[in-house]
Amino acid sequence: MERLLDTYRQTAVQLSGHGKREIGVLKRAFEQVRDDEPSDQYGQGETIRQFEEKMAQVLGKESAVFFPSGTMAQQIALRIWCDETEKNTVAYHPLCHLEIHEQDGLKELHQIEPILVGDENRLMTLEEIQALPDIACLLLELPQREIGGELPTFEELVAIHEHCREKGIHLHLDGARLFESLPYYEKEASEICALFDSVYVSFYKGIGGIAGAILAGPKAFCDTSKVWKRRYGGDLISLYPYIMSADYYYELRKDKMAEYRNEAVRLAARFNELDGVWTTPRIPVTNMFHLHFQGEKEEIGEKIARIQEETGVGITGYLVEKDGHCSTEVSIGDTFERITREQLDRLFRQFR
Amino acid sequence: MERLLDTYRQTAVQLSGHGKREIGVLKRAFEQVRDDEPSDQYGQGETIRQFEEKMAQVLGKESAVFFPSGTMAQQIALRIWCDETEKNTVAYHPLCHLEIHEQDGLKELHQIEPILVGDENRLMTLEEIQALPDIACLLLELPQREIGGELPTFEELVAIHEHCREKGIHLHLDGARLFESLPYYEKEASEICALFDSVYVSFYKGIGGIAGAILAGPKAFCDTSKVWKRRYGGDLISLYPYIMSADYYYELRKDKMAEYRNEAVRLAARFNELDGVWTTPRIPVTNMFHLHFQGEKEEIGEKIARIQEETGVGITGYLVEKDGHCSTEVSIGDTFERITREQLDRLFRQFR
Repeated sequence: MERLLDTYRQTAVQLSGHGKREIGVLKRAFEQVRDDEPSDQYGQGETIRQFEEKMAQVLGKESAVFFPSGTMAQQIALRIWCDETEKNTVAYHPLCHLEIHEQDGLKELHQIEPILVGDENRLMTLEEIQALPDIACLLLELPQREIGGELPTFEELVAIHEHCREKGIHLHLDGARLFESLPYYEKEASEICALFDSVYVSFYKGIGGIAGAILAGPKAFCDTSKVWKRRYGGDLISLYPYIMSADYYYELRKDKMAEYRNEAVRLAARFNELDGVWTTPRIPVTNMFHLHFQGEKEEIGEKIARIQEETGVGITGYLVEKDGHCSTEVSIGDTFERITREQLDRLFRQFR
Repeated sequence: MERLLDTYRQTAVQLSGHGKREIGVLKRAFEQVRDDEPSDQYGQGETIRQFEEKMAQVLGKESAVFFPSGTMAQQIALRIWCDETEKNTVAYHPLCHLEIHEQDGLKELHQIEPILVGDENRLMTLEEIQALPDIACLLLELPQREIGGELPTFEELVAIHEHCREKGIHLHLDGARLFESLPYYEKEASEICALFDSVYVSFYKGIGGIAGAILAGPKAFCDTSKVWKRRYGGDLISLYPYIMSADYYYELRKDKMAEYRNEAVRLAARFNELDGVWTTPRIPVTNMFHLHFQGEKEEIGEKIARIQEETGVGITGYLVEKDGHCSTEVSIGDTFERITREQLDRLFRQFR
């Protein structure tokens, strides 16, 4: 399948993302920054303070802390809620980032036991949450990335929030793609976050920064998270390469999420018209969806590679094999608008 | 003492460092980098691979891994050696970075028990090491920063190495300032590192990069450290802002360490000529020394602030109070050469 990745890399435009992850992304963000702007220093200084305050306001929380990664931020959030409630059990979706992408950091570093809620192919339900035993914290991911970016309704969120409050369960938001979810809810970030005790957001997904995350919540929670950030070795002398680029790309793209989502809806509809091709969700609720092809990975990969070569449009660099079909992810960003209508028509013609 | 820091910040040149920690440091490092150079991605890609291989070679180790911080790298190193030996005790100097600057991360995240070796005001001795109980790993810091950058002789290092090998104790090098130590030993980095099982080096001290660290050792050790890096949330999608600046400033300054040290020796001698002022070590062995003033912190701080205002030369922005005296640190870098002989003469005249 190297050919699939190779042909993808050689395409001039791609269905997904904001363009290639290249050094230019950093250089653009710093073009207008003065050379004598001071660095942050171990979590102190105007650069980091201003961005943390801005994000606390955006998310409607008392306080916010910049972290190099969401992995670090979220493990720490769960640890703090466990310590506060003197429990060591949390609950999350079976395809939660902590469960499948972090080499069991939560278990290895904190001996916290996660309960996996519901089925991995769909969102967890209120009933499943109500059936949980006594836990410190429930983590909800909005949107649920590994199933194509599905979202519960706002009413469902409110019901989950009320249940958790009643039971004394802390509710944490994995908002890696929170900004991407706002068009669906037609709400401000702070209105969603008001339902959660703590929130993490990422700056290199829909926002398209270089790396970095914000963890927000009550002041005491954030203060404790800074102690853990130091313990983890995340309290770097300088985080400004990530902070300033996060801020730059946040400003550039925060208001484009509805546009990305509309393109995703239109694009998914065209894929769903093809034989043996379908998306989940069928109608995307954010800028992303999963794209499935009936058939063997080798054969589908070869077909996509050929289409990428012939159209110059990157569809994907990888396929994951499942029962009789294979899948990939599409996530709309700035590059999509660089694809001409003709290129797209050609792409779909070749799929037929 | 705000006045001390304020006047320090307003100076045009400083005794210590490579200039102010400003955004220009990043921009300079990337000036010659092409916009279309690809990012590293979760520890993969040419950018990170090349730098890791280069550093493995420089340090004479089989393998090397780039980390966002030394805090993360060293806790992980000790954890791996503990797991391998099935012990949970390590040993280090009472003023080791892990003991005083990491909010007890090693204990909180790994339940590893450190034994503090020797007296905090001097280097540990071979006899003290020989008296240690059965431990997984001994950490040596070269130079010992918190006592002014002292170094054991190479013969002492060899004796410690032999003892540890005989006893099955892993020897880890905290080489945050390893490059700064090489002029004293008149050896290559690899010759020092050959005495250690694993090594950490930093890129924002004498090298003057933005942040970041290398952990080097046997291949299996490094492979396991990558799993822990993922667990810690240190396996960022992009570390290139740190990697490329580390490489840039490493090339710029690696051969200047002897020059920095010679300046430190000359400068310390001048301070030692003053009444009620002395340095530790009396004759620096690296580019750094601690600078002590007989008297109260307020009074000395006021005096230094005045001298900083009058000469435009930054001596320090802080003082630490001890018994009847107060102290600060001087660490020579590129800025020192920008101070004119006249400025320096004036500075010492004003101290008299």
